[in-house]
Amino acid sequence: MNKITEKLLELVSDWKGEFRGAYNIRENGECAGRQSSNHIRIDSKEDAPGLVIHISPEAQNEMVYIPACVTHGDVDDLVYNDFYVGAGADVTIVAGCGVHTDSEETARHNGIHRFFLEKGAHVLYKEKHIGTGVGAGLKKIDPVTDITLDEDAVLEMDTVQLGGVDRTLRKTSAVLAARARLTIHESILTDGEETAQTDFEVSMDGGDSSVNLVSRSVAKGKSCQEYHSRIKGNCRCTGHSECDAILMDRGTVNATPELFAGDPDAALIHEAAIGKIAGEQIVKLRTLGLTQEEAEARIVEGFLRG
Amino acid sequence: MNKITEKLLELVSDWKGEFRGAYNIRENGECAGRQSSNHIRIDSKEDAPGLVIHISPEAQNEMVYIPACVTHGDVDDLVYNDFYVGAGADVTIVAGCGVHTDSEETARHNGIHRFFLEKGAHVLYKEKHIGTGVGAGLKKIDPVTDITLDEDAVLEMDTVQLGGVDRTLRKTSAVLAARARLTIHESILTDGEETAQTDFEVSMDGGDSSVNLVSRSVAKGKSCQEYHSRIKGNCRCTGHSECDAILMDRGTVNATPELFAGDPDAALIHEAAIGKIAGEQIVKLRTLGLTQEEAEARIVEGFLRG
Repeated sequence: MNKITEKLLELVSDWKGEFRGAYNIRENGECAGRQSSNHIRIDSKEDAPGLVIHISPEAQNEMVYIPACVTHGDVDDLVYNDFYVGAGADVTIVAGCGVHTDSEETARHNGIHRFFLEKGAHVLYKEKHIGTGVGAGLKKIDPVTDITLDEDAVLEMDTVQLGGVDRTLRKTSAVLAARARLTIHESILTDGEETAQTDFEVSMDGGDSSVNLVSRSVAKGKSCQEYHSRIKGNCRCTGHSECDAILMDRGTVNATPELFAGDPDAALIHEAAIGKIAGEQIVKLRTLGLTQEEAEARIVEGFLRG
Repeated sequence: MNKITEKLLELVSDWKGEFRGAYNIRENGECAGRQSSNHIRIDSKEDAPGLVIHISPEAQNEMVYIPACVTHGDVDDLVYNDFYVGAGADVTIVAGCGVHTDSEETARHNGIHRFFLEKGAHVLYKEKHIGTGVGAGLKKIDPVTDITLDEDAVLEMDTVQLGGVDRTLRKTSAVLAARARLTIHESILTDGEETAQTDFEVSMDGGDSSVNLVSRSVAKGKSCQEYHSRIKGNCRCTGHSECDAILMDRGTVNATPELFAGDPDAALIHEAAIGKIAGEQIVKLRTLGLTQEEAEARIVEGFLRG
């Protein structure tokens, strides 16, 4: 495992020299370390690059780490990871991704993650993305997440991208059975010439299922962001989405949240607000002794965490 | 002018045997009456069916009526009406449209209205649509509205469709110069197998322009509604859109409000809520002595007016 990978692991998956729990470390398309645990089995996929991860119902409050790092240009890493989570299991999955290039060549990671949660399973899925390095080569991360929730299953997805990724196209889709619950919290900051595109599609097919999508984004420099969500309520269900964006410098944002109510018992709500930081907020922090830049940074930090 | 036209005029344009002000009555594609006034000149269009209406800056608190009626099947009426509103003029334009068929054949009205408002002009534009008649022939109304607002101009559009129209596709677009203000209030009720599609596109190009779109819709029976709005903020401006829908029976609604902030000083907000009437509201009205049906009708009426 090279030094850059170690650094990226610290940034995206709270690596402190080791992982406690099951893990697989992917470095430039190769396996740089793997460990299964009593209740969590990690195998290589037979028909494609990637992993098949079986989590047994006995797994309670357990961790799985599957970070992936690209540490130089001219790598186009593609990986398929499938998670089978047994009925009633309760786990946290950390899937950070770091991409680094010091050369002129593109470094890209494209992770396709599928989650199959059995009845009553609970997953907290944390995904943190970062790009580093001084090369002119593009740093690209294009995650695809497909989620299938059986009855009463709960998935909470927390996805964060805080800079350095030149291009990202993130596609997330989910299908929910009865009483299943999906929560997605997305935080994205783009700067310079970066572009970020997000696409959510959630289908509530089982009675009393629910979804809550919250997207917080900041577009700085000349960066461009596109947000599209589609929430389909095909039964008695509740859906809520909220997408707020802060504009700075010459950043632009396009937000298109779509709601489809195909059943009279579907209750769907959406809110969106796009604008710059209110002047009063800055003034307040400046009277406390912060500079303009410090005040802005503080507000952005709170907004993305919120 | 036939009896059906008189009846439709009452429903869509408050006709009480006469109009006070300038008017043109269109009946099955023909002119059934026209009157210009001192400050408002109505001419036939030379190159296409329709009208050219010149409103001089002297017009203050004046009325223009341009209702259009189709009273039998096998009519496919297409009309182009252009409004040139002089600087500082203040008028109300009533453009009701009624479509009636007792036969198996389709009755359709397709009105393409263009508004050019000069500096500081103020227009209240009222558009009411209705379909009547017992024939199996489809009743279609497809209005297109293009709005160009010069500096400080204000257009308020109030569009209402309260039943009987089998198919409607309504397209509204607007371009706003500095400090121009556009307000659109849409109320749509569909029932049976009706479909209604709405498409708004507003481009705020001048500093401190503003737009407020409010759509209230009720989908009953097996009717389907599609709502799409696109608000583009290309400068310092404010945009607000709100689309609320009530579902009854097996009605469905798809809402896609799009916000594009292309300037850091654009402040854009959207809210949407789709669902059925809350049970408590019905119970409250029933304890006051209303039947279930009366209670629902009362709530729907208030919602569409709101």
